[in-house]
Order: sequence, then C-alpha cells, then structure tokens
Amino acid sequence: MRAVIPFKKQNCKTRLSSVLSLREREQLAYTMLTDVVATLNRCNVEVDILSTGVKQLDVNANVIYSDTSLNDVLNEYLSGMASYHKPPPDILIVMSDVPLLTAEHITHINNRDEDIVIAPGSGGGTNVLYIKNPASFHVDYYGTSFLDHIGIAMKRNLTVYMYDSFYLSCDMDEPSDLIELLIHGTGSASQLLKKWGFYVLKDGVVGLYRK
Amino acid sequence: MRAVIPFKKQNCKTRLSSVLSLREREQLAYTMLTDVVATLNRCNVEVDILSTGVKQLDVNANVIYSDTSLNDVLNEYLSGMASYHKPPPDILIVMSDVPLLTAEHITHINNRDEDIVIAPGSGGGTNVLYIKNPASFHVDYYGTSFLDHIGIAMKRNLTVYMYDSFYLSCDMDEPSDLIELLIHGTGSASQLLKKWGFYVLKDGVVGLYRK
Repeated sequence: MRAVIPFKKQNCKTRLSSVLSLREREQLAYTMLTDVVATLNRCNVEVDILSTGVKQLDVNANVIYSDTSLNDVLNEYLSGMASYHKPPPDILIVMSDVPLLTAEHITHINNRDEDIVIAPGSGGGTNVLYIKNPASFHVDYYGTSFLDHIGIAMKRNLTVYMYDSFYLSCDMDEPSDLIELLIHGTGSASQLLKKWGFYVLKDGVVGLYRK
Repeated sequence: MRAVIPFKKQNCKTRLSSVLSLREREQLAYTMLTDVVATLNRCNVEVDILSTGVKQLDVNANVIYSDTSLNDVLNEYLSGMASYHKPPPDILIVMSDVPLLTAEHITHINNRDEDIVIAPGSGGGTNVLYIKNPASFHVDYYGTSFLDHIGIAMKRNLTVYMYDSFYLSCDMDEPSDLIELLIHGTGSASQLLKKWGFYVLKDGVVGLYRK
C-alpha cells in the first residue's frame, strides 16, 4: 500500500479564520500533515505528498509539487501509478486535515478485501479513500463526494466497504471541529491548539474557548 | 443485554427550531426513537424506554414514565437493575436521537470483552454506553460526558473500549446533523425528512435545503 496526501498550505482553512490568524491556520495545517505522515510512517507505508504552493516540506515523504486542481492532480497520480508500476500499488488517499488518524485505522483498512474502502467525512465528504487498483477508479472530490465515490465504484462493479469511523470523519474545517481535536487528539496538532490556549468548556453546551 | 433509551418528546430538539416546527421536531424525535427501537428489536434486545412527558408510546418496548433528570433517572435505573435482577443484565444506554444505529453496531458491542463500551457523540457527548455490570457504574451526562464517563471507568478500574463509529457519533441536535441523516440514513427518520422536502445540495459546500 502507498499513501498519497494532497496538501495546500497558503491561505488554507479559511473557515477557521474567525478563531485563527492566517499564520496560525497555516501552522495548524502543516502540523496536522505531520501527524498524518507520522502515523503512516509508523505503519511503514510510503507517503507521497501532492503539494500546492510549497515545494519543500520537512516530513518523511516524497513531495510532488503541483498547482492543478485536487481532482486533476489525484487522477493524474492514479493514472501514473497504474502506468508506471507493474503491478501497481494499492493506493490510500488521505486528507491532510484528519489528524485523528491512527495506526489501527491503517491496519483495519489493510485487512479489508474490498476493492474500495471509503471513510466519510461529515457533510458527505471523503476523508480516507483506499483504492485496490488505481487503474480501476477516478476520484471526484468536492460536494457530496462520499456519494459520488460510491456511485463511481458501483458503475465499475467494484466492491465497497464503508469505513464507519468517527475519528476519520473529523476533518478540521470549522471552529467546532477543533473541539474534537482537543477532546480526542493525542498528536502534535492537538498539543499546538492547547499551547495556543484553546480549551473546551466542559459543562452545559460544550464550546471552544481561548485563554 | 438489555437496552435503555431515555426519551423526551415535548418541546424537544429546540436547536432544530430554525428548520422544523414544534410539531415536526416532536414527530422527528418520535420517528428516530422508533428506528432505534426497531434496530434493537431486530437484535432481540429487550428495550426499556424512560419516557418524560409521554406515558404511552406505540413501540415494542417497556415504557417507564419518569419526570426526573436524565442522570437521576438513568442512575436509578442502573441501581434497580443491579438490585432486582440476579445476575444483573448488562445494560446498553442508547440515546433516542442516534437514528444511524445498525444491527452491526449492536453485534460489535456485544462481542467486546471490556467492562465499558462508549461511542462518543460529536462535541464530547456520549451517544451509546454499554455497561457490563450496572452495579459498577454511574452515568454523568451533559457537557463533555465522554471524558467524564472515561474518568468514572478509570476510577473504578474498569476496562474501556472507545467505539470509534461515525454513525453512532451522529446525534440530531443541529440543522447540519440532518445532512448526515439524509446522506447516510436508511430508516423511517430519513424517509420522513425526505417526505418533508429536505434535500442536500450536493455541489460545492454541502448544505441542507427544503423544497
């Protein structure tokens, strides 16, 4: 299995602007990426990062610079893997803002027999997508990509496992998402939030606060 | 295993008021309850409903009327089960607004060996809580109850399994939660939303709309 992570640092995570400065958003995005890469490294999975805007990243991964759209760059990557590797490796597409990814998740996916494993994000997104044969599939992110990806698999008669994981559903788009990272996180991204003074109000309706 | 579901119908789900009338909120709450009970019935689990405000419910469950607070009524229930049943049954506390509960979830929980199984809700809640021995535990809902319940288990040297499930994390408190029900639901609650004209805008930022 080989993992690929699309990553964009510059002016990322704009929906977090109400609680984080531009610099903080970029730092958080980068730190979440390092958490995801570290988890994949622990599982001995080779990691490719498709980076937009940044050519050098201090992580244990192959950094491939790209400035095309998310779908185009990933579909080119899948085609390339299918064409240039015999046999092609199975591919795990992981979003860089899923910092609650654990080694157990990777093992669980690795042990599945289905052609496609898909872990939904909240709001119909696709946070983790495993593709057994990169020649057999193309991605269609944005919108309700979870439904789109299941539809693509059905059309191609591929078997699908819906990976029902709360941790994998937690991408960090909105301020309320940071609450999940504070409560459940154990990596460097949650430590960063705590260092910045974020905490969760624990009584009544839970909320995100900053000292 | 025996399941218990706290249920309040009157003026429930106030955070859904911006998209649902009082009558619709009550109807949705009741329909979600029937989905949860139907799933438990399919698994041959006996169901007790601790009902506030409504004495009669048309579901295949024992309805116990109560007007005390959530924590008090559940802790009284646990004490009662521990005192009057020899041996006491293991107890599964399920929130009534977790309509994506499936038979597979129940089987998975039933197969665990830990003393406590806890499925977090978003925002630090506890949506499903399995207690092997009702004499050994007390509940503490509201706020970050997920952390509180883990703390209680630790203090009592109980083993805990964190059930990492996206479907079980989806309680229906906010309008955005209804998006998950529309996308992932297969039961009568998702049908009801569709009958009322709700749909999900699928492109760009996903949103909840009504015809």
